[in-house]
Amino acid sequence: MEEEKQTRKGKYAADFSSFREAEARIRPFIHKTPLLSSESLDALSGRHLFFKCELFQKGGAFKFRGACNAVFSLSDDQASKGVVTHSSGNHAAALSLAAKLRGIPAYIVVPKNAPKCKVENVKRYGGQIIWSEPNMQSRESTAAKVLQDTGAVLLHPYNDGRIISGQGTISLELLEQAPKIDTIIAPISGLPVVRDFVDDVITVEDNEIIEAMKLCYEILKVAVEPSGAIGLAAVLSDSFKENPAWKDCSHIGIILSGGNVDLGVLWHSFKR
Amino acid sequence: MEEEKQTRKGKYAADFSSFREAEARIRPFIHKTPLLSSESLDALSGRHLFFKCELFQKGGAFKFRGACNAVFSLSDDQASKGVVTHSSGNHAAALSLAAKLRGIPAYIVVPKNAPKCKVENVKRYGGQIIWSEPNMQSRESTAAKVLQDTGAVLLHPYNDGRIISGQGTISLELLEQAPKIDTIIAPISGLPVVRDFVDDVITVEDNEIIEAMKLCYEILKVAVEPSGAIGLAAVLSDSFKENPAWKDCSHIGIILSGGNVDLGVLWHSFKR
Repeated sequence: MEEEKQTRKGKYAADFSSFREAEARIRPFIHKTPLLSSESLDALSGRHLFFKCELFQKGGAFKFRGACNAVFSLSDDQASKGVVTHSSGNHAAALSLAAKLRGIPAYIVVPKNAPKCKVENVKRYGGQIIWSEPNMQSRESTAAKVLQDTGAVLLHPYNDGRIISGQGTISLELLEQAPKIDTIIAPISGLPVVRDFVDDVITVEDNEIIEAMKLCYEILKVAVEPSGAIGLAAVLSDSFKENPAWKDCSHIGIILSGGNVDLGVLWHSFKR
Repeated sequence: MEEEKQTRKGKYAADFSSFREAEARIRPFIHKTPLLSSESLDALSGRHLFFKCELFQKGGAFKFRGACNAVFSLSDDQASKGVVTHSSGNHAAALSLAAKLRGIPAYIVVPKNAPKCKVENVKRYGGQIIWSEPNMQSRESTAAKVLQDTGAVLLHPYNDGRIISGQGTISLELLEQAPKIDTIIAPISGLPVVRDFVDDVITVEDNEIIEAMKLCYEILKVAVEPSGAIGLAAVLSDSFKENPAWKDCSHIGIILSGGNVDLGVLWHSFKR
């Protein structure tokens, strides 16, 4: 079991020292994002909350850190044919921007039902869009064809040590900005890594997420995506508040991970 | 003329040294607000822009700086009966919060047509609302009655040196955070002070303001009030771009002054 865990760690090759390496690599390109705090939200949660505003990162989400680290980790030879990914989300825009900075093409396989503002972001950063049907099979087969045609390097949105190390630089910044932090809450996906490294998982309901988005808008004055508001939803949820395991968490870093939300979508979700 | 100007300066008693005094006074209470920047907006404007995010200030606007300085400038005796103002805007919420921190009452005369989110802010910070009709005569007579009944101190939203010095602390923070800044653009009101101290005034149209609010939302990921977006509207306006007097302004600080905007109002103004 322990051996298997070590193997998995090795596979992703993302640890604290790789975060430091990534930080040095991407520092010239990323925004050092600000922390916000609010006495109103501290009172509501009963803790000291520090909101790490990755929605202000380039491309509107934390994803640029990982994409930037991956793109600038490639050798000149590897990079020369460009990069490819299939993503309907922020990784697509982030990879487009990172590739643009390196001066190489980015081929982005996008499902036809992707949100408009995310497609606009890919275009803004010069990514070349290749449309696929909105299912995983079509996305993967379209990406495979692009790989074959171009010789570009595939960069997966999360199951990749270079991507993970780039995202990990958030925690370094956060702890530097607020050294008192004893707990970090972040939205999660990419499940083998979560299984091995995350201490605990809190789940929240859709209505709790919408309520957290409202609080972000009304109190913090920032517009976040549903996934971006999950950390606040978690810290305000009964399952967090009532769990004795969390009672000593007093200074909590919360990652506001993305802000690419169409205003109309935000407005209509608040009216529900 | 010069003598008259000196008299007016004396009246408001707000200068650089009073900014420093105010900063020391209010430092324990205010947020040091972050600067945001965006390569997309730099490209659009042809300048380096530094957005001073006073919408993240307590109460959602820069007004807390002035209110805080005024309230904490009062002697214990002056403060004991509380403070009063007539305002439909952010000064009302800011004064409520400052009074709460000092442990004194705040009486806020609010016209019946004030925006909902601003009234909610006054209530959130414990201000006591006294409704007036939505005209200046009723606002002033209602405030006069409150003054007579309570013995509280009237704190005007802008024509007051203590208020002005508090707001002035923004510029100290801004220049500390981005020393290269050669120009500051801010929305203005309070006209005798503007006449004496402002270098130049740029006017913008409503549609330019709405466009700037959209850019703030879509690119900076912040929701600002119409008045809060005026600085960006100005720097993108033809009257700024085409005026030779401004051509050497390369590093521009822009005050995003307030973020108290109902989401529905934002959405409907974008759809126009």
